Amino acid sequence: MENLFTDEYFMKKALQEAEVAFEKGEIPVGAVIVVADKIIARSHNLTEMLNDVTAHAEMQSITAAANFLGGKYLKDCTLYVTLEPCQMCAGALYWSQISKIVYGANDEHRGFTKMGTQLHPKTVVVSGVMANEAADLMKRFFKERRK
Amino acid sequence: MENLFTDEYFMKKALQEAEVAFEKGEIPVGAVIVVADKIIARSHNLTEMLNDVTAHAEMQSITAAANFLGGKYLKDCTLYVTLEPCQMCAGALYWSQISKIVYGANDEHRGFTKMGTQLHPKTVVVSGVMANEAADLMKRFFKERRK
Repeated sequence: MENLFTDEYFMKKALQEAEVAFEKGEIPVGAVIVVADKIIARSHNLTEMLNDVTAHAEMQSITAAANFLGGKYLKDCTLYVTLEPCQMCAGALYWSQISKIVYGANDEHRGFTKMGTQLHPKTVVVSGVMANEAADLMKRFFKERRK
Repeated sequence: MENLFTDEYFMKKALQEAEVAFEKGEIPVGAVIVVADKIIARSHNLTEMLNDVTAHAEMQSITAAANFLGGKYLKDCTLYVTLEPCQMCAGALYWSQISKIVYGANDEHRGFTKMGTQLHPKTVVVSGVMANEAADLMKRFFKERRK
């Protein structure tokens, strides 16, 4: 039987979170954290609403997943996030020792790849999953903002 | 008249926070954020108590200071922290556009200098303020832990 729980399946959930951020006037980035095909955390960027630069989608999901698991290490978890994590979020993911990070669109300016942020050596990274959908949402957001 | 509000004055306040962390069994790191010689945020590492890798002293103080100021940018603020910030905290400080960072002891392994994390171009950094006191507290903590 075909596996329903593909990277695309979970990235769609992260994109739904990004859409919620969009509707709130937040830069549209969404994230979910998955363990054994189960979503244990979902979040979207809330930096404007909370007046807090640390309220990125990834940070909230890391905290929520650790609360759910009752431990601070996310060793058997996968993070799905619509945009490439920044230095701060990659730094938090480093501490969490997360197993896998799947992201959508690249962030050419502020992404951890460009910035040279180190992930945990055990963390596997997959990029470009539904990247066009994530990038289109960002473009639509900034286009509407300029109006 | 002599200025009482020196970097050492505020670093002592951060060290007091680090002592509180120590008593709670947390890696002893403390921080305060100051604007116009007034402390608007104080915090200490709570990663063990909160089961959360994001609960570093700096992260909590950034959130608290932004709440106090009613805005997410910390442009006229100085962070005093007993240990050199990590990638995550330096990444958060980057987003906050904080004016000045004063830290005590170097973190040769996980500090942002070694890791190559970028701060905001407008941020001034001062290191080594009461570094021996901060380092001694860390050494004492790990020595007691090994017992």
